[in-house]
Amino acid sequence: MSDRILIRNGLVVTPAGTFRGDVMTHGEEILAIGEALPMSQVDEVIDADGCLVLPGLVDPHVHIQLDTGIYQTKDDWGVGTRAAACGGVTTVLDFATQFPGQTLEQALENRWNEVDGKAAVDYGLHVMVTDLPAGEEDELRTLVRLGAPEAKVYTTYRPNYYMDDDRLLRVFKAAAKHGILVMVHAENDAMVSAATERLIAAGKTSLRYHAQARPMLAEQEAAHRVAFLAAEAGARAYVVHNSTGGTTEILAEARRKGINVISETCPQYLILDDSLYEGEHPEWVILQPPLRPRREGAKLWSLLASGEISTVGTDHCDYTLEQKVSTMKFPSTPGGIPGLETSLPLMYTYGVAAGRISLERLVEVMSTNPARIFGMFPRKGTIIPGSDADLVVYDPRHKGQISVGRLHTVGGYTPYEGMGVQGTIRVVLSRGKPVCRDGEFVGDAGRGRYLERSLSGS
Amino acid sequence: MSDRILIRNGLVVTPAGTFRGDVMTHGEEILAIGEALPMSQVDEVIDADGCLVLPGLVDPHVHIQLDTGIYQTKDDWGVGTRAAACGGVTTVLDFATQFPGQTLEQALENRWNEVDGKAAVDYGLHVMVTDLPAGEEDELRTLVRLGAPEAKVYTTYRPNYYMDDDRLLRVFKAAAKHGILVMVHAENDAMVSAATERLIAAGKTSLRYHAQARPMLAEQEAAHRVAFLAAEAGARAYVVHNSTGGTTEILAEARRKGINVISETCPQYLILDDSLYEGEHPEWVILQPPLRPRREGAKLWSLLASGEISTVGTDHCDYTLEQKVSTMKFPSTPGGIPGLETSLPLMYTYGVAAGRISLERLVEVMSTNPARIFGMFPRKGTIIPGSDADLVVYDPRHKGQISVGRLHTVGGYTPYEGMGVQGTIRVVLSRGKPVCRDGEFVGDAGRGRYLERSLSGS
Amino acid sequence: MSDRILIRNGLVVTPAGTFRGDVMTHGEEILAIGEALPMSQVDEVIDADGCLVLPGLVDPHVHIQLDTGIYQTKDDWGVGTRAAACGGVTTVLDFATQFPGQTLEQALENRWNEVDGKAAVDYGLHVMVTDLPAGEEDELRTLVRLGAPEAKVYTTYRPNYYMDDDRLLRVFKAAAKHGILVMVHAENDAMVSAATERLIAAGKTSLRYHAQARPMLAEQEAAHRVAFLAAEAGARAYVVHNSTGGTTEILAEARRKGINVISETCPQYLILDDSLYEGEHPEWVILQPPLRPRREGAKLWSLLASGEISTVGTDHCDYTLEQKVSTMKFPSTPGGIPGLETSLPLMYTYGVAAGRISLERLVEVMSTNPARIFGMFPRKGTIIPGSDADLVVYDPRHKGQISVGRLHTVGGYTPYEGMGVQGTIRVVLSRGKPVCRDGEFVGDAGRGRYLERSLSGS
Amino acid sequence: MSDRILIRNGLVVTPAGTFRGDVMTHGEEILAIGEALPMSQVDEVIDADGCLVLPGLVDPHVHIQLDTGIYQTKDDWGVGTRAAACGGVTTVLDFATQFPGQTLEQALENRWNEVDGKAAVDYGLHVMVTDLPAGEEDELRTLVRLGAPEAKVYTTYRPNYYMDDDRLLRVFKAAAKHGILVMVHAENDAMVSAATERLIAAGKTSLRYHAQARPMLAEQEAAHRVAFLAAEAGARAYVVHNSTGGTTEILAEARRKGINVISETCPQYLILDDSLYEGEHPEWVILQPPLRPRREGAKLWSLLASGEISTVGTDHCDYTLEQKVSTMKFPSTPGGIPGLETSLPLMYTYGVAAGRISLERLVEVMSTNPARIFGMFPRKGTIIPGSDADLVVYDPRHKGQISVGRLHTVGGYTPYEGMGVQGTIRVVLSRGKPVCRDGEFVGDAGRGRYLERSLSGS
Repeated sequence: MSDRILIRNGLVVTPAGTFRGDVMTHGEEILAIGEALPMSQVDEVIDADGCLVLPGLVDPHVHIQLDTGIYQTKDDWGVGTRAAACGGVTTVLDFATQFPGQTLEQALENRWNEVDGKAAVDYGLHVMVTDLPAGEEDELRTLVRLGAPEAKVYTTYRPNYYMDDDRLLRVFKAAAKHGILVMVHAENDAMVSAATERLIAAGKTSLRYHAQARPMLAEQEAAHRVAFLAAEAGARAYVVHNSTGGTTEILAEARRKGINVISETCPQYLILDDSLYEGEHPEWVILQPPLRPRREGAKLWSLLASGEISTVGTDHCDYTLEQKVSTMKFPSTPGGIPGLETSLPLMYTYGVAAGRISLERLVEVMSTNPARIFGMFPRKGTIIPGSDADLVVYDPRHKGQISVGRLHTVGGYTPYEGMGVQGTIRVVLSRGKPVCRDGEFVGDAGRGRYLERSLSGS
Repeated sequence: MSDRILIRNGLVVTPAGTFRGDVMTHGEEILAIGEALPMSQVDEVIDADGCLVLPGLVDPHVHIQLDTGIYQTKDDWGVGTRAAACGGVTTVLDFATQFPGQTLEQALENRWNEVDGKAAVDYGLHVMVTDLPAGEEDELRTLVRLGAPEAKVYTTYRPNYYMDDDRLLRVFKAAAKHGILVMVHAENDAMVSAATERLIAAGKTSLRYHAQARPMLAEQEAAHRVAFLAAEAGARAYVVHNSTGGTTEILAEARRKGINVISETCPQYLILDDSLYEGEHPEWVILQPPLRPRREGAKLWSLLASGEISTVGTDHCDYTLEQKVSTMKFPSTPGGIPGLETSLPLMYTYGVAAGRISLERLVEVMSTNPARIFGMFPRKGTIIPGSDADLVVYDPRHKGQISVGRLHTVGGYTPYEGMGVQGTIRVVLSRGKPVCRDGEFVGDAGRGRYLERSLSGS
Repeated sequence: MSDRILIRNGLVVTPAGTFRGDVMTHGEEILAIGEALPMSQVDEVIDADGCLVLPGLVDPHVHIQLDTGIYQTKDDWGVGTRAAACGGVTTVLDFATQFPGQTLEQALENRWNEVDGKAAVDYGLHVMVTDLPAGEEDELRTLVRLGAPEAKVYTTYRPNYYMDDDRLLRVFKAAAKHGILVMVHAENDAMVSAATERLIAAGKTSLRYHAQARPMLAEQEAAHRVAFLAAEAGARAYVVHNSTGGTTEILAEARRKGINVISETCPQYLILDDSLYEGEHPEWVILQPPLRPRREGAKLWSLLASGEISTVGTDHCDYTLEQKVSTMKFPSTPGGIPGLETSLPLMYTYGVAAGRISLERLVEVMSTNPARIFGMFPRKGTIIPGSDADLVVYDPRHKGQISVGRLHTVGGYTPYEGMGVQGTIRVVLSRGKPVCRDGEFVGDAGRGRYLERSLSGS
Repeated sequence: MSDRILIRNGLVVTPAGTFRGDVMTHGEEILAIGEALPMSQVDEVIDADGCLVLPGLVDPHVHIQLDTGIYQTKDDWGVGTRAAACGGVTTVLDFATQFPGQTLEQALENRWNEVDGKAAVDYGLHVMVTDLPAGEEDELRTLVRLGAPEAKVYTTYRPNYYMDDDRLLRVFKAAAKHGILVMVHAENDAMVSAATERLIAAGKTSLRYHAQARPMLAEQEAAHRVAFLAAEAGARAYVVHNSTGGTTEILAEARRKGINVISETCPQYLILDDSLYEGEHPEWVILQPPLRPRREGAKLWSLLASGEISTVGTDHCDYTLEQKVSTMKFPSTPGGIPGLETSLPLMYTYGVAAGRISLERLVEVMSTNPARIFGMFPRKGTIIPGSDADLVVYDPRHKGQISVGRLHTVGGYTPYEGMGVQGTIRVVLSRGKPVCRDGEFVGDAGRGRYLERSLSGS
């Protein structure tokens, strides 16, 4: 492949600094960046005048074609990666569940088979480890070999995913031995279960009660415990979707004591709040953890700006509105919201344009940091000669609104419906190939590749 | 100026990642970086095959043509910046002393006059504030206006530089108000004075006693106090030349409490140790603070690797050997050693090649961080289109020895005489112009410019 | 009652200082203390020359006539309090289990009925709260009314006692509201259960494996979590039987952050160690938590001396040797050892005589502190006019050995068999009445009273 | 001496608890305490019905017959100890200044000579160490031998007392070696000097500017530095007269890190505030450190209640009103106020009666703790048989006002003039002998003895 694309005259944001100029791709890689690169021998010129040129986003937390054992999303890898492409997300890190009786390798193989021929952008997989018999902890080594060096675990969701403290500690110890990062969904199972049962017993099962079923303290206690166990095991832990400021503060205090824990949050916890459960469409915001009071979002923005939160993932789940409203009871409503396609405009608008974070910080938490933490840097997460030509041309001058009509998901809704956004995605390149132009998907199903990732340094 | 230089096929180290490829300059700036940039229209091609291509070093702590009021170095700006150029240091940050009766602006003007027509590389100035009458603290604002937004102060050296805690606090408060960074030479004056007097009283004035005159605790106590006063004033402090691990640990603990303090160290504290005072050439290592026991160097390397030390400066002073041996008594020997020309090979050899720090970390502490902290990023400290074409081509395959015969300083010695080094500097570019080739100075006196620097973000 | 007893010429240890002199009782109370109290009108004179005169011990953690739902000890309140009397323990704080379906008041009534007519020394009760339905948390108020203002809970022992984090938090919140102290047996249930199951699966069920079934980390993690939940609820927690130094250090760190948690340890964790599981009589040391490595005992002594451990209780359980050896498998062996009668000589010998703690500290942790914490000071825990005449005359000159033959328990063994002790108990007074003389029980069953205790200050 | 005094039926406050009953003395000591001690053979019976019976106060910080080298108070040991006696202070700890050229022993001898035949209550001495030549640090051992095991030092007051950090550190190291406690007057000399000079330069020398001359931060910085140096030396430090809450908080943080530092405050910093400098009698409140804003007093009360402040001393200085108003300029007005005679009623009224501290806490900080810290417990600071019969009978029912007319000082004023107080001192016994009855001094000049004190335990 010898196609060359020249993106001209944009404001190019890289970890080495921001400059006004050009980016040239050659084949799948960045060939050069410069102030005025020569236009000869170029197959296409993209005019980025007035636009930002960003490294493609790396979403560390995505659930495409999800099967929880109870619920299944209606999308597939084609739909999901098409939405990613149109959201400027050129790398999705999804999950491979180890279903009962499966080895870790089988869990990965299942997903590879599912993806086969469908992915429009590159993807990696984190394995959800659900079974780790005592004595077989070294099976985690497989994950390193297969380029998926993380173990995702849950401290809640009996009986499917729930991992008690004994198993958690064994995972941490084995992970520490093999250098694997442990990703943790941290909520105290007893607190969540009891709160839910009390609501059910009281007949309070309509959607508006959803947040009450999952107290903030349940998340904070679990984070506190996870940091303790990680420290004991000498392991690194990555606590997904911090939804309260207190969660991040607990992890920050652990970091100050030298414990290796990382915080992730999601756009929904920064931008939305629990007043929506009282609104017209509570079905749009059924997710775990739930939305929190407005003040928590403010705290999370501040912790994101100060560096205590390292990454922003979407926790994207493409359930349909039909699934969401099938019972109108929170205990039987699948949890999870779509986010892949809206994360960049939302984070730009409510983060950068609102003055809460710098443009460089946005790139750091949505691209560079996930690439580093998950062993893909500098192939992903930067703009440097030789890195994959994953690029987003974003026009910050455009003013628009989020509307489900423009999205590529199958769910039929977005929780951000009608919200104003500043800027729009003009072009997205995935390994040198345009996959989205002005909201239209122009990529190829099947071109996305599985990323064999290495152990990250820290 | 339309000269174009193409540096081909090196391992280019940038904050955005490291890649194998080319860097093209145009005039004074980086024009492009790429995997295989076109060679047409190029005035010179530098073959960097097998070499590293680094951003020019930014030495934050240099004393060229120094007049302490008591001693004067014998170099001038021509000599000093020639040495810098040949050491890969394309930006020197030196000092402008406010002598008695002078305004801060006069202090700067004096230095500008001295430099005029002599500098071979770009330079900035930190003003040594020695007089800040109560009520006139706002004069510090001048420093912002003149692009030198730091105040350097000393907690020792009576009567010339010494600033007592009242003045220190007033400087901190005024600095906080105007966003100025306070650089502090931190040693407890009473401890240093008393230790010196006791040695003199005991007739222990030969050079071997030098280190005993300046106890490690004197530095640590002052750092502890500086952090307290900075916190009270809401100021940012930069503690120069941390020579003991304990100093940095005290500052690190302050950082964990949210106090804005930065640690600098120097190659001599990492690489040399106080056993040299018992050696053949104690005159080579008379400097303040003195060399410390070997274990301190080990601690400092570890703190440099872990991020607790942000910058490495040389504290370069080009006294002559004659000055050094004139009395052979430490109280009357000028303190300070040359370092500009040896810092890169030494840090590469004893840091990177020895496995103590990564190549990326070397670039960070010797180029990117000083550029950021002192308000010059991304003009300096990175390799990105549009940044100044300050570049070093370093060949890591070469094996050699430090030898005074190859240096451009006037002092006639180097404390590193005979030490083995891995690698050599092939070419140095300053704003697009070669200033050193294979050890030979090829620059132009007078081409170096004063850098008007801005307030840094953090 | 107008009996007067004069204890003459002893070394009287009180929180107000230690003096050589006399203590006079009148009826049930201390009448006077002095240097040479008048001997007229005295019914009995006890010569304490060369002896220590201590306030009667207050054992905060005792299980007389225990019914766990699975096992029952073979003693009754007569046996247990006789042993207490002969051990210098004039106040026992035992437990009242809330069995399924019972109110808290019924739990207390059961025990009152059992005790009726049998107790030889005063007793108080802590209620083991096992059922606290949501919405009925205020029932805890009953405990204040009935003079038993503590709630004892377990984080392990499914299904009888186990309390999950939701219930634990609700107990903490209700306790905080009513000023009640929460006593916690802290071991991570999942870790203990899993370790046990793995040993069973491996056929490792002989007694020597007992300690492996209950890892130290299980205790430490639970202490860490308990401190977190107590802090969230604003409650006070008292963590019983700290068996590892790490447990106490975790609680000490919490205290430094202002969290109100108290540490208790037991003589067995200070004096014995896990090498006994490899010895001739592992059945003597089956208890929960198990004995730990020797270094833990050393740490605990140090934490006891420095003030981080507030109390020493015995966790006395009088199972018979027959019960202990019935299966020779640890999972089916009742846990718990006798201790009431040996705690004072052991703590004096291995603590005071060995120089690890002062005599005053012994009195503090075995008498004054438990009396203060559990709302009985200055009635118990001191020697002051008007306080209960609970006194121990201890002769430190005597040298002897622990031997089951001299004990008043029914179990038929002591884990301390054959250990040397320094000193012996000469006389014990309970509310002015001798209950033990030179090892012989001389008290009256039924004279011991239920102590209605008040909320303690801190 | 065989006098027996029976104090009947009071509320007796001891560290072992509070009881209603009697205290009997015999000769110089407590003979007995009891509920109803026999009245036969008693020389005097004091009816304490409705009254408190307290251990005599131990004032750790007193300046009787003070000669600062510049100013002299007009009292002598007769006047000063008479005031102490009438204030319930039965032990005064005063200072012996090492004047230029004197040994430490000579400093003590000077004071012994002055006191000879005059003291009405017992006294101890802390030596103000002003000269400690390098190499002679072991002279501090003398202090242990002479029963005055403290070194008092100043971080301010040039040139008389000022000790720079080098000397301070040497004192700390020598003190650590010999177990001596270092008492520190902590104010940053440079800050105090500069603030004073600026006020003088501005012509602001009237008394109302006094507080501005000694900023709160000067005290806080010095406390921070003292804790650091004490930690380095392994010494124990006692920071006198904490006048700001921040000072105590800095020391409390040091304690949490294991540094052995003790906080003292004075009634004036708890009860008075800096609004008095704007009032009618600024001359009444010229003292160092000065009075602070009202909020600081509130913080200090809270820190006193929570245990962070260990002792309350008065810093008593009996300058005359003539001396105070001689120039009406603060730089030439002797600093220091009388306090010995008013501390108990003030602390009872504004502490205990106002609900800020308990009665037991008052006794702890004004009697038991100073006795323990300064090596006199249980001879002083408690009520226990064998301890010195130093007792205060205080009637809390009385309501009165502070008035200079009732005081025994020579100064002719009190800063508390007209303030209401709850309670009055009925009788004070010093070693078994009444020294004050209802405000009238009835003691004997010369009966007070020098207390040879031992090293305290902690």
